Amino acid sequence: MSDRTRLTRLRERGVENREELLDFLAGQFIAHLAVDAGGYPVALPVAYALDREGDQLYVHGSVGAGWMRSAPGSPVCVTVTSVDGLVLARSGFHHSMNYRCAVVIGDARLVEPEEERARALDLVVDQIVPGRVSTLRANTRKELAATSVLAVPLAEASLKRREGGVGDEPEDVEAGTWAGVLPLRLAAGEVETDPLTSRPVPEDVARRAAELR
Amino acid sequence: MSDRTRLTRLRERGVENREELLDFLAGQFIAHLAVDAGGYPVALPVAYALDREGDQLYVHGSVGAGWMRSAPGSPVCVTVTSVDGLVLARSGFHHSMNYRCAVVIGDARLVEPEEERARALDLVVDQIVPGRVSTLRANTRKELAATSVLAVPLAEASLKRREGGVGDEPEDVEAGTWAGVLPLRLAAGEVETDPLTSRPVPEDVARRAAELR
Repeated sequence: MSDRTRLTRLRERGVENREELLDFLAGQFIAHLAVDAGGYPVALPVAYALDREGDQLYVHGSVGAGWMRSAPGSPVCVTVTSVDGLVLARSGFHHSMNYRCAVVIGDARLVEPEEERARALDLVVDQIVPGRVSTLRANTRKELAATSVLAVPLAEASLKRREGGVGDEPEDVEAGTWAGVLPLRLAAGEVETDPLTSRPVPEDVARRAAELR
Repeated sequence: MSDRTRLTRLRERGVENREELLDFLAGQFIAHLAVDAGGYPVALPVAYALDREGDQLYVHGSVGAGWMRSAPGSPVCVTVTSVDGLVLARSGFHHSMNYRCAVVIGDARLVEPEEERARALDLVVDQIVPGRVSTLRANTRKELAATSVLAVPLAEASLKRREGGVGDEPEDVEAGTWAGVLPLRLAAGEVETDPLTSRPVPEDVARRAAELR
C-alpha cells in the first residue's frame, strides 16, 4: 500500500487484509495490464499468475507485442477485476456494481533467466487450471524464447470491493419503486473436447469446469 | 483506427468491421479506463455507455475520484473485454483465451453541460439494463453535480477477437494428449429483490436477467 494505491474515496470499500488480497489474486486469471505506450496509456487483457513466494505477479505476452516492449523498467498497473453483480437502485444515481478489484502498481521487470521464465509460464497455466502443468510436456527453449514475461512486485497493491444490496434515498424507498441486485459471475459452459482427441476430459479440467459452473 | 490502435501482431484477430465493433460495445457494460495518473498509468473498472449518435463513449465516475481528475484533456484508453473461453492446448505455450476486446484511445473530454451529463448518465443506466431509465425518476441537479462524466471519441478504436479451438503442434496431437476449450461467459444468477419492496421484478430487469442467464 502506498500513495499510489491508497484509496482516495469510499475508503470503506478498501480491504486492508493482505491475505484477502492474495487470495483474490490467486482465484482469478485475467488482468488488465496498463502501460505508458509513449504519451498515452494502453490497457489490454492478459493472463497472469500470482507468485506468492516472490511476492509478485507474472504477466505474459508475445515478444512481438509492441505495446509491451515499453513496459520493462517503467511503472505499470495490473488490475484484476471480478464483476459480482448489478446493483439496480431506485434512481439512476444510485445504480452501481458489486465487484472486487485489485490494483497493483510497480516497475515492471523483464524476466530474463530462462529458468525463471519457464517457472512463470507454468504458474500462468496453473493459475488458469490448477494442476494442468503436471499433465503437459515442458515448454521448449524455442517456445520460451518466443514469450516475454514481466514481473510486477506486489509491494504497492490494494483491494477494493463493493458487495451487498442497494443504497437508496428514503423518499425513493417510500415511493415504492422496485430495486434489487442481479448477481453476476464468470461461468463455464460444457467442456468442448478437441475433435482430434478421443481421451476423456482430464480430472483437473473437469474440476475447474465444475468450480466455474 | 490509427497507429495507436492498429494491431501490431496477430492481425488475423483484428476485426475491421466498424458495425461489429459498435455492436460489441453496445452489448457490454464494463470497461477498464486507463489514465496517466502522473508518471504512471492506472486502469480501473468503470461503467460506460456507447453513444452511437455522438460516435463516442461516456464513462462515469465520482467527482471525488482523484485518479479521474487528471483525465480531461489527456489521452485515455477505454478497454472493453469479454472473456469467452479458456483454450486448453496440448502444451503450455499454446494455452490461450477466447475473447473479444475493444480498445479505444482518445482525448477525454469532461462533459460540462448539465443536459449532456444527464443524457450520458441515462445512457449508462440503459446500457446496464436496457429500458430501465424510463422506469426511474430523473436524476436531481444535486446528483448530476456529484457525478463526473468523461466523453471519449470513437475515432481511434479497434476490436480484436480470438475464437475457436486449440492450435497445437502436430507432434503434440500425435502424442494423444487431451485438449479442448472451456467456454466462459458473464452469467446472471437469480434476481435478489430488495427486502424494502414487495413489487415484482420489473420486465426490463427480468429480460436482462434472462439474457445473461
